[in-house]
Amino acid sequence: MTIVRADYVMCMNEDFEIITDGAVVFDTKIEAVGKAAALRDAYPDAEFTDAGRDSVLLPGLVNPHVHLEFSANRTSLAYGDFIRWLKSVIVHRDALSSTCKEICMKKVLDTVLRSGTTTIGAVSSYGFDMKPCVHSPLNVVYFNEVLGSNPAMVDALYANFLSRLEESKSYAKKGFVPAISVHSPYSTHPILAKKVLEIAKEEWMVVSTHFMESPAERAWIDRGEGDFAAFFEDFAPGSKPVNSAMGYLELFEGVQTLFTHATQATDAELSKMEEIGYITHCPVSNRLLGNGRLAVEKVNKLTVGTDGLSSNISLSLWDEMRAALWMHHDIPIHEVAKKLLRATTREGAKSLARDTGSLEKGMDADLIAVRVPDGVAETKDLALQMLLHVKEAEMVFVGGELVFG
Amino acid sequence: MTIVRADYVMCMNEDFEIITDGAVVFDTKIEAVGKAAALRDAYPDAEFTDAGRDSVLLPGLVNPHVHLEFSANRTSLAYGDFIRWLKSVIVHRDALSSTCKEICMKKVLDTVLRSGTTTIGAVSSYGFDMKPCVHSPLNVVYFNEVLGSNPAMVDALYANFLSRLEESKSYAKKGFVPAISVHSPYSTHPILAKKVLEIAKEEWMVVSTHFMESPAERAWIDRGEGDFAAFFEDFAPGSKPVNSAMGYLELFEGVQTLFTHATQATDAELSKMEEIGYITHCPVSNRLLGNGRLAVEKVNKLTVGTDGLSSNISLSLWDEMRAALWMHHDIPIHEVAKKLLRATTREGAKSLARDTGSLEKGMDADLIAVRVPDGVAETKDLALQMLLHVKEAEMVFVGGELVFG
Repeated sequence: MTIVRADYVMCMNEDFEIITDGAVVFDTKIEAVGKAAALRDAYPDAEFTDAGRDSVLLPGLVNPHVHLEFSANRTSLAYGDFIRWLKSVIVHRDALSSTCKEICMKKVLDTVLRSGTTTIGAVSSYGFDMKPCVHSPLNVVYFNEVLGSNPAMVDALYANFLSRLEESKSYAKKGFVPAISVHSPYSTHPILAKKVLEIAKEEWMVVSTHFMESPAERAWIDRGEGDFAAFFEDFAPGSKPVNSAMGYLELFEGVQTLFTHATQATDAELSKMEEIGYITHCPVSNRLLGNGRLAVEKVNKLTVGTDGLSSNISLSLWDEMRAALWMHHDIPIHEVAKKLLRATTREGAKSLARDTGSLEKGMDADLIAVRVPDGVAETKDLALQMLLHVKEAEMVFVGGELVFG
Repeated sequence: MTIVRADYVMCMNEDFEIITDGAVVFDTKIEAVGKAAALRDAYPDAEFTDAGRDSVLLPGLVNPHVHLEFSANRTSLAYGDFIRWLKSVIVHRDALSSTCKEICMKKVLDTVLRSGTTTIGAVSSYGFDMKPCVHSPLNVVYFNEVLGSNPAMVDALYANFLSRLEESKSYAKKGFVPAISVHSPYSTHPILAKKVLEIAKEEWMVVSTHFMESPAERAWIDRGEGDFAAFFEDFAPGSKPVNSAMGYLELFEGVQTLFTHATQATDAELSKMEEIGYITHCPVSNRLLGNGRLAVEKVNKLTVGTDGLSSNISLSLWDEMRAALWMHHDIPIHEVAKKLLRATTREGAKSLARDTGSLEKGMDADLIAVRVPDGVAETKDLALQMLLHVKEAEMVFVGGELVFG
């Protein structure tokens, strides 16, 4: 049993409770959370660690949407417009994925861990990131992705998907959970989507998908027009949209699904997504690719993801939350700060169906200690000051084990 | 004579010219800018330095609005609302200014220099930052600030201001230029403002002022209402606004003035300010204090400042520009990137009446080398990639002298 004390314990429970001079007692799961003095009395044999002055204990962060396979990108890909970016991805795809292989991805995952993220949803196109994810101390929900809009290709694509899924299932363990990603309404034929969603239903898997990321996607799905029309004309002349927007969402009914981006979604679509699952906000990626901004004020079941380094400069959720603080300039800053912390802890955990994301008895002992540079005047300022100042965690525990710090 | 080569030379001239495999030749002033090979032939005796792969040469950045005197703040001050923040400043003022004295401010200025800023406008309330500014290799336009809305106090406040101004004038040199700041329309009586503006006119000094920073300021100046009414009631019962908004701006006619914040300004006021001088945008400070966002799309004579660490987490203009990229999410990202780089170089320099801010023959040799992590596909992507990736300069020259790197 371990007991860690901190100046602040941010429980991330329903009430956003913050305990000053608090502590958390845990083994692989959390045993107790409360005032430090009382817990030291109650657990005299637990190994005691003090996170020190101006420290904050909180649940490890949850980043439910990361693409690791293009982690080599720094400045190769072109930003500003989704289709321009997509074309640059196609040009650089092979070079990027051959530049960041297993050692490189391990380093990337180590950076993610040190930043204070303890659980990720890794969206995998090729399976190149499978072994680094299996071997990482991070909790990984591993989304094997499928896509393809040509009905003639469905069987081949499904077979390829299935072999990756089976391989990932062979590694299944508490810290590595095989799951499924259906790419998007503009790229995935409903026959293919339905086939893989059947598996998700039968095997109770979590599912991830991209939805209404760009104005181009909106124009294509709604009217078969816009930049995607020209784009598809080059690859598959005569293409038409294979899904309607609402028809696509309905495919996911009955499956716990994370809908990512949704910057161009209508209110009815946002409601539908929240009915089915969660919405993942990737503010930096959306900004870099010219995709607009999710109306977070309309979303309750909100999670935050970094997307990949193919459309970001960092996989740290602290960096992502700082960017979101500026981007959502029209919402009072303390309100956004709390909403973002909820999204990156308890909501993220619920979206991935993990028993983590809050410091409450019975939860997995995934917790981190961070430090604010000075004390804060009032605890109501703590969330914002953390978002402004924290760059890296000082201690990271996953399943009760100290994996960094 | 020195010649520095880089993969890209970002001239920051009128046309936003970028020279690939370029170089800059300089002594204390810039002698020539062009292709590296041609310049090496033309200046065979100049000392050659290569800034290396993926390097960019550009003018040193200009930060025309910094308060150094509260540099000790990390998390002591309360954010989210201007009046709440102001009250916390009053409570912590003495502690903060006694915690960051001359050595501390020297360190802060060194950080500013290493980030790639070569010219600042330092707004000084007390003169505590005078000597660090005098001794810094940075170019400093030193704004001695005056404020006071009680007419009975005008003479005493003016005398105090005058003694600071005189002291700063005793240190005047190329790299340290005494100047004047009139605090704001809500805090400075027009009699006091006029007296100091007379000096500015006679001695051709640049002037800085804050204008329409907060919704509270707007309500107070326009109607004598709002949070400032309650605030003044505590300090000086029966207070009334001492300036009208437009009346205040008119005080500055005929003086080169930097108007800072202007988040709550009307279109007519923005036009008036641009007629008289420049507008300084402090996006992070405005966001932290709940003051809204400047409509940068309406402003041509735009500069960018960090404000002080009393309302920011960094004095680096790269950090400030990155935050602005997210904050102005509704303007195409490449357009904002270029606008921000113009604002932090040529526009900033013009606002402070300095011969710097562009790499053109005859300008002061204030230039920096930075590095982007990889090459960029097209030079039109360079501005954005710099804003995304640069954290610190690799070489900093001020007046032709290498002061960092």
